[in-house]
Amino acid sequence: MTAETVTIPARRGKAARVRKGQRITIISTHGTQVVDTWAFSAEDPTEWMSMEASRAWFLKLAGAVGDSYVTNRRRPILTLVEDTSGGAHDMLMAACDLQRYGLLGVKGHHDNCRDNLHAALKELGVTVPATPSPLNVFMNIPWTADGTLSWGEPVSPPGSYVRFRAEMDLIVAFSACPQDILPINGRTGSTTEAHFTIE
Amino acid sequence: MTAETVTIPARRGKAARVRKGQRITIISTHGTQVVDTWAFSAEDPTEWMSMEASRAWFLKLAGAVGDSYVTNRRRPILTLVEDTSGGAHDMLMAACDLQRYGLLGVKGHHDNCRDNLHAALKELGVTVPATPSPLNVFMNIPWTADGTLSWGEPVSPPGSYVRFRAEMDLIVAFSACPQDILPINGRTGSTTEAHFTIE
Repeated sequence: MTAETVTIPARRGKAARVRKGQRITIISTHGTQVVDTWAFSAEDPTEWMSMEASRAWFLKLAGAVGDSYVTNRRRPILTLVEDTSGGAHDMLMAACDLQRYGLLGVKGHHDNCRDNLHAALKELGVTVPATPSPLNVFMNIPWTADGTLSWGEPVSPPGSYVRFRAEMDLIVAFSACPQDILPINGRTGSTTEAHFTIE
Repeated sequence: MTAETVTIPARRGKAARVRKGQRITIISTHGTQVVDTWAFSAEDPTEWMSMEASRAWFLKLAGAVGDSYVTNRRRPILTLVEDTSGGAHDMLMAACDLQRYGLLGVKGHHDNCRDNLHAALKELGVTVPATPSPLNVFMNIPWTADGTLSWGEPVSPPGSYVRFRAEMDLIVAFSACPQDILPINGRTGSTTEAHFTIE
């Protein structure tokens, strides 16, 4: 059976339920789209994938194939099992939000990953009391030896993907990042859809 | 008027209310004690100091004198105005918690920074729905150019301090980290008190 390919619409979010042992594949369909990613325990969504606990777990600024991301209760939740994207996945930066776009000069509404997360969860009847720091799949935040960070462009070729194994029953949530001011989604300022499968 | 020096007891937490413009000084009394630090808006404690938003704000892996840490609503909350400690203050690692000590082989109870945070806030009648990633004052987590992290020993001399300016009315919370297994509080495994002033 071929897994259904689900669309994460441009500038929007999408969440799905996943069973322990299933594989989640996130596809960089057009090659320049960041996908903010969160995971929550299906049993209790206040247990969520934690970037700060994951760094303490694998002692690196970024995970690579073979590494497990863990929850705020220190349990593995997602293991990165395959990556054809070039391997730039940020775990340092907050999800974009309305205030962030305000600082960048946007007046009024702008789509943002924080709202996309909560809207996507709501479609599954799930609410969470905070916005965890996301795993920013395909997002390229280079660091230097002296600790300087910068907003890089994606390195993921079109059609490349990352694949995770679910280590518990969980809810995964994605946002096709609507950032069109910084070059995070490429220098064209165009934001696109992405896709995922669960199998 | 000399500001009162308040004790953060060894292995315990302490919180205090601070007005906009006041200075918070955290003293490494004995030189080897990490102080996990959090800040919350007095008006709405679900607005809290965010390490992931602060990295996006100052584009570095760690703040230095002159940098402002910002909230999860992207507003400056604490500005580092003076630092005699050597400057190692981690913003990458989660607060220690009971599960963390379980992974390190501890059976049953162990004091931990997460519980200390919530107990300290409770003394002020404040509850928050999650445990934000802390600013680990005096905690030395070196990184390498390839992104490897390690548990370093403190570099702060006894009596050294950091001083922050409060950028809004806020609640500050501290935990004298009870980590006695990793060398985060020095190789002796002894955990000590620390002190702070607000003026």
